[in-house]
Amino acid sequence: MIFEEVAKEIVEKVFGGIGVIIIGRDGIPLAMHLKEGAELDLETLGIEYSNLLAQIDQASQNIGTGKLVEFSLHTDQYLVVVRTITPDYFICLVMSPDGNFGKGRYLLRVNLPKLQAEF
Amino acid sequence: MIFEEVAKEIVEKVFGGIGVIIIGRDGIPLAMHLKEGAELDLETLGIEYSNLLAQIDQASQNIGTGKLVEFSLHTDQYLVVVRTITPDYFICLVMSPDGNFGKGRYLLRVNLPKLQAEF
Repeated sequence: MIFEEVAKEIVEKVFGGIGVIIIGRDGIPLAMHLKEGAELDLETLGIEYSNLLAQIDQASQNIGTGKLVEFSLHTDQYLVVVRTITPDYFICLVMSPDGNFGKGRYLLRVNLPKLQAEF
Repeated sequence: MIFEEVAKEIVEKVFGGIGVIIIGRDGIPLAMHLKEGAELDLETLGIEYSNLLAQIDQASQNIGTGKLVEFSLHTDQYLVVVRTITPDYFICLVMSPDGNFGKGRYLLRVNLPKLQAEF
């Protein structure tokens, strides 16, 4: 399936890539790929981020800052980039803190048309 | 006051810079600078983002992804970068969608020690 292929390709191509999950706004995962040996509960993470997306959308509506395209988070353990695929689905890339943030964002962006074509 | 100076400097130095607000987690602003002629309710935006920070912190705790350092949002109208100054204060930079994201993040990072020294 194209979703698994894209998820795997992104994790493998970006320095520091740990996992990619494609997930619905309702928290139901569509596809995911976790780097071999990585200890990360990607599914739980995806569910938390789908909650977060709803909060961010609400905040954006409250202040009139427009439709959300992408958001990213840097914690002391992870770099996370989340990009909207359709109004109902998004893709989430998790990297190590020293991961290549720019390349990660680029890979999500260039793979978007391929993913969108499937919906 | 150093807070206003830093806010102004960042807005002026970054391409696409619209406004900077330094604000408490409780939503009370400490200092802000808005580009002349810009139509943006920076205070309301700051309050919404302080809510969002609380949600993100909660999500991070739930999934054990560590302490939040920075988060950024791209909507079709704005680029926003938020960076933690202390556990109680953060700085928020708002740029136009074509703004220099990398330079904005850089300016927040290099000005951090100056701001932290004031707390």
